[in-house]
Amino acid sequence: MAGNSFGTLFRFTTWGESHGPAIGVVVDGVPPRLKLSEADIQYFLDRRRPGQSRYTTQRQEPDQVKILSGTFDGETTGTPIQLLIENTDQRSKDYRNIADRFRPGHADYTYWKKYGIRDYRGGGRASARETASRVAAGAVARKVLGPGIAIRGALIQVGPHAVDRANWDWGATAGNPFWCPDPAMAPRWAEYLDTVRKAGSSAGAVIEVVASGVPAGLGEPVYDKLDGDLARAMMTINAVKGVEIGAGFAAAALSGEVNGDEMRMHDGKVVFLSNNAGGILGGISTGQDIVVRFVVKPTSSILKPMRTVDTEGNEVEIETHGRHDPCVGIRAVPVGEAMMAVVLADHLLRQRAIGGM
Amino acid sequence: MAGNSFGTLFRFTTWGESHGPAIGVVVDGVPPRLKLSEADIQYFLDRRRPGQSRYTTQRQEPDQVKILSGTFDGETTGTPIQLLIENTDQRSKDYRNIADRFRPGHADYTYWKKYGIRDYRGGGRASARETASRVAAGAVARKVLGPGIAIRGALIQVGPHAVDRANWDWGATAGNPFWCPDPAMAPRWAEYLDTVRKAGSSAGAVIEVVASGVPAGLGEPVYDKLDGDLARAMMTINAVKGVEIGAGFAAAALSGEVNGDEMRMHDGKVVFLSNNAGGILGGISTGQDIVVRFVVKPTSSILKPMRTVDTEGNEVEIETHGRHDPCVGIRAVPVGEAMMAVVLADHLLRQRAIGGM
Amino acid sequence: MAGNSFGTLFRFTTWGESHGPAIGVVVDGVPPRLKLSEADIQYFLDRRRPGQSRYTTQRQEPDQVKILSGTFDGETTGTPIQLLIENTDQRSKDYRNIADRFRPGHADYTYWKKYGIRDYRGGGRASARETASRVAAGAVARKVLGPGIAIRGALIQVGPHAVDRANWDWGATAGNPFWCPDPAMAPRWAEYLDTVRKAGSSAGAVIEVVASGVPAGLGEPVYDKLDGDLARAMMTINAVKGVEIGAGFAAAALSGEVNGDEMRMHDGKVVFLSNNAGGILGGISTGQDIVVRFVVKPTSSILKPMRTVDTEGNEVEIETHGRHDPCVGIRAVPVGEAMMAVVLADHLLRQRAIGGM
Amino acid sequence: MAGNSFGTLFRFTTWGESHGPAIGVVVDGVPPRLKLSEADIQYFLDRRRPGQSRYTTQRQEPDQVKILSGTFDGETTGTPIQLLIENTDQRSKDYRNIADRFRPGHADYTYWKKYGIRDYRGGGRASARETASRVAAGAVARKVLGPGIAIRGALIQVGPHAVDRANWDWGATAGNPFWCPDPAMAPRWAEYLDTVRKAGSSAGAVIEVVASGVPAGLGEPVYDKLDGDLARAMMTINAVKGVEIGAGFAAAALSGEVNGDEMRMHDGKVVFLSNNAGGILGGISTGQDIVVRFVVKPTSSILKPMRTVDTEGNEVEIETHGRHDPCVGIRAVPVGEAMMAVVLADHLLRQRAIGGM
Repeated sequence: MAGNSFGTLFRFTTWGESHGPAIGVVVDGVPPRLKLSEADIQYFLDRRRPGQSRYTTQRQEPDQVKILSGTFDGETTGTPIQLLIENTDQRSKDYRNIADRFRPGHADYTYWKKYGIRDYRGGGRASARETASRVAAGAVARKVLGPGIAIRGALIQVGPHAVDRANWDWGATAGNPFWCPDPAMAPRWAEYLDTVRKAGSSAGAVIEVVASGVPAGLGEPVYDKLDGDLARAMMTINAVKGVEIGAGFAAAALSGEVNGDEMRMHDGKVVFLSNNAGGILGGISTGQDIVVRFVVKPTSSILKPMRTVDTEGNEVEIETHGRHDPCVGIRAVPVGEAMMAVVLADHLLRQRAIGGM
Repeated sequence: MAGNSFGTLFRFTTWGESHGPAIGVVVDGVPPRLKLSEADIQYFLDRRRPGQSRYTTQRQEPDQVKILSGTFDGETTGTPIQLLIENTDQRSKDYRNIADRFRPGHADYTYWKKYGIRDYRGGGRASARETASRVAAGAVARKVLGPGIAIRGALIQVGPHAVDRANWDWGATAGNPFWCPDPAMAPRWAEYLDTVRKAGSSAGAVIEVVASGVPAGLGEPVYDKLDGDLARAMMTINAVKGVEIGAGFAAAALSGEVNGDEMRMHDGKVVFLSNNAGGILGGISTGQDIVVRFVVKPTSSILKPMRTVDTEGNEVEIETHGRHDPCVGIRAVPVGEAMMAVVLADHLLRQRAIGGM
Repeated sequence: MAGNSFGTLFRFTTWGESHGPAIGVVVDGVPPRLKLSEADIQYFLDRRRPGQSRYTTQRQEPDQVKILSGTFDGETTGTPIQLLIENTDQRSKDYRNIADRFRPGHADYTYWKKYGIRDYRGGGRASARETASRVAAGAVARKVLGPGIAIRGALIQVGPHAVDRANWDWGATAGNPFWCPDPAMAPRWAEYLDTVRKAGSSAGAVIEVVASGVPAGLGEPVYDKLDGDLARAMMTINAVKGVEIGAGFAAAALSGEVNGDEMRMHDGKVVFLSNNAGGILGGISTGQDIVVRFVVKPTSSILKPMRTVDTEGNEVEIETHGRHDPCVGIRAVPVGEAMMAVVLADHLLRQRAIGGM
Repeated sequence: MAGNSFGTLFRFTTWGESHGPAIGVVVDGVPPRLKLSEADIQYFLDRRRPGQSRYTTQRQEPDQVKILSGTFDGETTGTPIQLLIENTDQRSKDYRNIADRFRPGHADYTYWKKYGIRDYRGGGRASARETASRVAAGAVARKVLGPGIAIRGALIQVGPHAVDRANWDWGATAGNPFWCPDPAMAPRWAEYLDTVRKAGSSAGAVIEVVASGVPAGLGEPVYDKLDGDLARAMMTINAVKGVEIGAGFAAAALSGEVNGDEMRMHDGKVVFLSNNAGGILGGISTGQDIVVRFVVKPTSSILKPMRTVDTEGNEVEIETHGRHDPCVGIRAVPVGEAMMAVVLADHLLRQRAIGGM
C-alpha cells in the first residue's frame, strides 16, 4: 500500500501519470442505488479543467470521464466504480530538458532519491494532473452526502493580496476566473497575475472550503478526528504547505473566553454565537459550517532560471518551459471541495455504522 | 475501527479515559532486538508530566509507565508492546457541575451528540491526558529511528507574543518552563501567563517541531505523503487548529523563484540553499530538516463564566473549576515531538519494505 | 502493524505473552450505549478456562477480566475498551529445557528465524493463552450482535473418532468435558484421551461452529467475503490447519444439482431446501445458519521424545514437560465461537454503514 | 472499503463486471525498478483464459492486458500499476431469463438481498471473470518474489476422482487440459466430465498449490499469520468452500508424535523429516514448501432445471443456458497460484520492513 488510497469506508485509489495513456480512480464502498451518471462527474471535472483562462496551464485536456464499472441502469450497485480519464494533449518532448535535472521546489529530486527511477514527463505521478482523479471521486462522494450538504470553495488570497471578508459574496465566485468571492479583488488579481506570468514567475494562494448542512456527530476520535482527516486530505493536494480549521493560526492570540463559541437555544435547537471552532470540536462535527483553509505555494515550474543539480551531481541551471499554471491555487479550489466531500462521505458512513445516522 | 489507531507499519492504538483506572497504548510493528526499558519511556513522559510549574495543570500524576508485553531480556521481540499508565490523582467530584452542561469550545457537546453518552469526568476520552499515551508511543518510535535522527520541539508563540527567531537557541528550551528557545521571551511569557491565569482565562500557543538527520526518500505519495501524515498527526492533538510545513502559510506571498529551494553540491553531496519546503517535496523527505508548526487554541475549560446550554436544552452559564492548564500549548511540545517520531518511524519501515533503507 | 489486529469496523488488537505479567485486548469500534459488564465477559472466559478437566492443561488460571476503559455507568461509550487478564500461575522454570531447542510442530523455530529472539517461556506470544483475549473480544462482539443471533460450537471429532450426526443434541454439549453433541461419543473420547495422555502423546480434533439468526446480506465481496474472513479468523487460531464452510471439502464430489440449495416460499419468506452453502453465497450471508468447521492438529508439546535441533545447530532430542492440553481442540470450541462472533459483528456494522441494517 | 482490496503492503484492488466494458486491477506498493511488461502478465492470463478446451466455458475472451500506469522504460516506478482487460465477447441477452430469478447455489440471491440491485448479466461482479484480475496481480507479485520462489498448482480431484499421489509428475500438468499431475488420471477425468457436461450438470474439484524456495520467517502473528492470509486468499476465489494447509483435515486423526515434523541438520542447514505443517508453523514460514489445498464446488449455473424463487416471491424453475464451465475448478488452478503469489509478495515486503530480508 504505497499510499495511493484514501478513506476507510468510502475509499478510493487513484492511479496514472501525467503523460501515460490515462489516469483514473477506483471508488470502493459506495452505497448501492444512488443515481450516478458520467454527466454528474463531468460537471465537476469541467470546473477544474485547465486552459479555461490565461491564468492556468494552456494544456488542453477535455478530461472526459468514463464509468467502467459499478453502475447498472444509471444507479450504483455497491461494487467498485472505476472512473477513467484519457490523457490526450501530451507534449512529452517539452520535458526532455528536465529529464536529468531537478526543478527546485519540485518532487523531481525526492522521487529520484526514493525510487531511483522516475517518469520525468510532466511530473509523472507527482503532476497536479492527479487531482482530476480526486475531483472525480469527490463527485461520487457528493452523491453519498446527498443534497442536504453543500460544499463550496473560494480563493481568498493570491500572492500578498487577500480578499476583504466584508465583501464576501458566494455568488461572485463563478463570475471571475479565480473563484474569488470579493468582486473588488478579482480585477486586482488579474493584473497581478499578468505581471507574474510575464515575469516568468509564479504566485502562491490561500483557499477556503466551507461545508454547510453537515450533521453533528461526524468524526472518530482520537486519530481519525474529522479535522485530522481534513488536514491530511488537504495537505496531500499538490503544493499545499499548511491547513487550518476555523480560527486556525489566529487562535493562538485569542483568549479562552473569546475563542470558545458560546451556545444558546433558538427555536428549540442549539445555536452557536460564533464559529472559531470551524464546525469541529474534539474531532467531531458540531453541526455548524465546517471551515477549512489551506495554502498553496507558488508553482515550482517557472521560466526564471534557478540553480540546481543534475542526476550526475553537476551544478546546473534550469528554466522550465512546458505549460504551467502561474498560480496553481486557482485550480486547487475544486480540488479542495472534492477532498472535503470525500472526507465527509467517509465519516458519514462510519457514523451510520455505529447507529448514529 | 473507531479511530484510536495511528500508523501503517509502526502502528499504535491508545485507550483510556481521564478518570478511569488507567490509560495506555499498545504499539504493534516494532522491529525485534531493539533495547527498550521502562526508563527509556519514562524520560519522555516526565517531560510531559503535569504539575511541574504553575503554568500547567496542578493535577499530580506520577505517570509511571509499565511495559506489560513485547520485550524479553530488555529487548523488543517483535510482538505488541503494551504500555500502561495508572491514573492516580482523580478528583471526579470536581466535574459534577459539568456533568450536564457543555463547556464552549470543548468536546462535551460533540461527544454527547455523537454517542448519546459520555464520561464527563475530566473530559473522559477527550482529555489531553490521552497524550501521555502518544508520548509513550513516541519513545518507542525513537528507538526505531535510532540515534541518527534527532527530534526537538519548542514553543514559539504564547498568546500574541512570538519569539524572535534571531535569538533561537535550542539549548535554552530546557532552561525555562515553556520550552522557549528565545531566552529573552521566556520571562515575558511568565508574566503574561500569570495575568491570564489570575483572570481565570487561558492562552493559545504555537509549537515548532524539527527533525534532523532524516534521510531523503521517506513518504508515500500521494495520499500517505509525509506532510499529509504529519498534518493529521499534529491536528489530532487536543486543541490543535492548524498545521504548516516549512514556509507554511507565508508561502502564499512568496514568488516561485524565492520559494523554490535552490540546490548546489558540497563535498559531493547535494545541499539546499534554503528550506522553505520544510524538508518535504512531493510528500517525500529531501534530507533537510523537517520543520512542522502547529497552533494550539486557548484551553476551553476556564473559570470565566460562559453562556452555554445543558443536556435538557436549557440556556445556562458555566464556569469550570477542576485543574486545567492555562496554556495547554506548553505540554503540547513533547507531544508534538512524539507525533513527529511516530510518523517518521512508520515511514522509515515503509521505505525499508520497498528496499530503500 | 505486525498483525495483532482483526476486523475493519469492529476491530480488536490483542497483546501479551504467556508468562508476562498480563495479556489483554483493546476493542475499538464498539457502538455506544450497549450494556457491558465484566461478568458478561467472564462468563465466556470461564468456558475456555484451563484446568477444568483432566483433558486440558492443569495450569490454574482464574482468568479474571478487568475492564480498564470504554464503559461508563455499565454502558459502552464508543471509546476503546481495554480488557486485561493477569497471568498468575506461571512456572517459567518448566521451560528452561526448551529455551534453546525447538519443539517439532511448534512455533519455536519460526519465531527464532523471524525475529532472532523469542520469549520461550510457555510459548510466549505463540501460546494458546492468547486465545483468552479472543474470547474476551468475542463476548463484546455478542453484545453488538444482540440476542437475535445465537452462536454455538461443538467438538465433532477427536483423533479418528467422529460424532454420529444423527445423534446431534446441542443440549448435550454442556454435559461433558468435550462440548460433544453426541452423548454416545463422549465416553469413548474420554477413554481414548486417557490412553493418549498416559502415552505422553496428543490428539487432533475437528470443531463445528454454527451461527443462527444471521440476517441475509452480511459480507463484502470480493476480498472481504464473509467466508473469506471466517476462514482467516479460524485459521489464525493456534494449531488450526484447515477450515471449511457448509459442505466443505465434500462438495468436490457433489453434482451441481445436488450441491445447489433449492429455494421455495414458506409463509411469505424464502426458504432453502438444504444448506450445502453453509449459509454463504458469493461471500454474503443467505439468512440460513452459517456453518463453519475447522481442524486442530494434535498438540506439539508432548512428553514423547522427538528428534530436533537446537539454536546452535546441534541435533538433539526433546521431550516437553510443562503443562499441556492433550487435545487443544477441546478448548478451541469457545475460541471458535468467539471468532465467529467478531467476524459477524464487524460485517453487521459494515452492512449498516451502507444502509442495509 | 467494500472489500475489493487485498494485501497490506503489496496491495491490489480489482474492479469490473462480467458484462461491463472492461475489468481490471490497480496494484499498489510494488517496489521500483522491477522489469515488467505486458507480455509478463499476458503469459499468466493465457493460462487462465477460457475456451481452450471443451471442459471450460466457450466464451471467447482474448483477455489482452494493457498497462496504463506505473511503469517507465519497461520498469516499475513505485507508483500504482493499473492493468486493464477489455470485455469483448459479451452475450448479455443470454442472461435475460435469469434477470428476475435466482440460481440455486449462486450469488444472485445474496447480491439482491444485500444491495437491492444487481447487474445480472453474467453474474456481474460475482462472475468468475473477476479472477482474471487476480491472475494479473499475481503476475506482478511474482516479479516481487523473484526467480528464487517457484509457485505451481495442480488439480488433484475432479468429482469423486482423486489423483494417485504416487504418480505425481509436475511436468505432466501442462500436458492435459486439467493441470492434472497424474498422467493416468487425466483421461478418466476427460471421460467423466464429458458425461457431466452432456447431462447438463457440473462437477466439483480440489486444487493444490505449492510454493518452493520461500525463506523462513514470512508471516505476521497472530492475526496476519501466513496461513490465515492464505486461507482468506483462497476462500475468496469464486466457489471455494474449504482450505487446508499441509496435512489439513487429516491432522485430526494423527498423533502428536506423527504430526510434528522432526528436524535434523544436513550440510549445516536445518532439514525437516516430513511436512505435515505445510511449510508454516505459528503462522510463519519454515523454509519448507508451502502447501495449500482448496475445494471448488460444482458450478451453480447448470442446464438441469432447479427449483427456485424470483424477485417477486414466486416459486419458479430455472435452467441456465449461457456459457459456463462444467468444472470451474480447472481454471481455478492458475487463480490459486496467483493468490499464493500475492500473499507471499505482501509478506516478503512486510518482513523486509522489520529488517528480516
